[in-house]
Amino acid sequence: MYPSSSAETSRPFLIWQKVINWAQNHYRERTFNKDERIPAHPGLLYLVQQGVIRLAGVSEQSASKEESEEGETFLGFIAAGQPFEIVAQSPYALQAYAHVDGTSVIWLYWQDLDNWPHFHWEVLEAFRAQHQRKLIWLSTLGQRQTIERLLGFLTLLIEEHGKPVKEGYCLPFSLTHAQIGSAIGSTRVTVTRLMGKLREKGMITIIGDNLICLPSYPEPITGAEEETIISKR
Amino acid sequence: MYPSSSAETSRPFLIWQKVINWAQNHYRERTFNKDERIPAHPGLLYLVQQGVIRLAGVSEQSASKEESEEGETFLGFIAAGQPFEIVAQSPYALQAYAHVDGTSVIWLYWQDLDNWPHFHWEVLEAFRAQHQRKLIWLSTLGQRQTIERLLGFLTLLIEEHGKPVKEGYCLPFSLTHAQIGSAIGSTRVTVTRLMGKLREKGMITIIGDNLICLPSYPEPITGAEEETIISKR
Repeated sequence: MYPSSSAETSRPFLIWQKVINWAQNHYRERTFNKDERIPAHPGLLYLVQQGVIRLAGVSEQSASKEESEEGETFLGFIAAGQPFEIVAQSPYALQAYAHVDGTSVIWLYWQDLDNWPHFHWEVLEAFRAQHQRKLIWLSTLGQRQTIERLLGFLTLLIEEHGKPVKEGYCLPFSLTHAQIGSAIGSTRVTVTRLMGKLREKGMITIIGDNLICLPSYPEPITGAEEETIISKR
Repeated sequence: MYPSSSAETSRPFLIWQKVINWAQNHYRERTFNKDERIPAHPGLLYLVQQGVIRLAGVSEQSASKEESEEGETFLGFIAAGQPFEIVAQSPYALQAYAHVDGTSVIWLYWQDLDNWPHFHWEVLEAFRAQHQRKLIWLSTLGQRQTIERLLGFLTLLIEEHGKPVKEGYCLPFSLTHAQIGSAIGSTRVTVTRLMGKLREKGMITIIGDNLICLPSYPEPITGAEEETIISKR
């Protein structure tokens, strides 16, 4: 988002709370468990209130053929405070899943936003920022070597969603090798092999419950700067 | 764009003309030849007035290393009437090129749009639509088989920019095999080979000056329906 003044930066939280209250009062809120599919419809606007959403693209053939995640393309995470919507455009459809337990989503009709024009504006600005991010993502996926696509993809994800720990910056939730493979046009087996290579070279590390990390950057990092450094790298 | 009433659908053209006039009066308009790079800066808003823009992602290494198109990822076309902007986010940068002769671009600071709030809204809605489109594009690129990525990619491009001719629907401008390869994470050589396969199978045809076409759809197509059929397929 690109607030144009500091007065505006403080307002969103108030509006956000108002929107959440409104949604709760109108039974437009629901909480999901990990990997549960959000029964989202095209034409509605969804906001992640808590947790994180995993977006996936599905070809219509595989959507009808099987219930499994086979044939789904991982399209990114939508973090709390961010909007998402489901586009159905044959031969592809988008699907949204709760990526962690307790992921809470509220939904609105676009005309509901007429009540909060400033919030409407912010939602559009958020989509604009998501679009910019996806162009960068596409730039990464254009690389010919799978290992370059893999490293570029992981770097972008960790820049956006990573948390600082003593080992570096880590994705705060796990992602399967099959999901990674689907995003970079490769297979689970290849991803597993290449992740091993990247670990050997020290370009990534894995901690705890299979969380992927980039090693610390050389600059000393303190407090308030962290967010900026991660997102601007 | 998603105008919510027919009154609004008629207004954009008036506003669009006003914005163009304003830009011309303020020397914010320039015309480019094919493959000329638009000297676009992050933080400004660009509108394609005429012709078509080719967006490319460049890794910073290759941007500094060489002047050629090597290492650039084709990220799509921006048609007349559409906005674009340049994001610089290391290790990637976006670049914009005129894809055909006589491509004319106007540019604005975001604050200039304060004069036309409705137009500002439309620009954001256009980015929202571009974002939805890019998610579908990413779904295609997640496919494992290069030939599937290639066909999916061509289908999306032709859906969006194709013109009806007697042979089917054709991209109205050419795209090199190297550019296609960059978009789908493959090489010029592979694209040439797979394009041959797709032609043999009758899944694509090539007409005139190397224009790529999808064969006609079985439904009879008349006049006003054409646009809808192309974009909704």
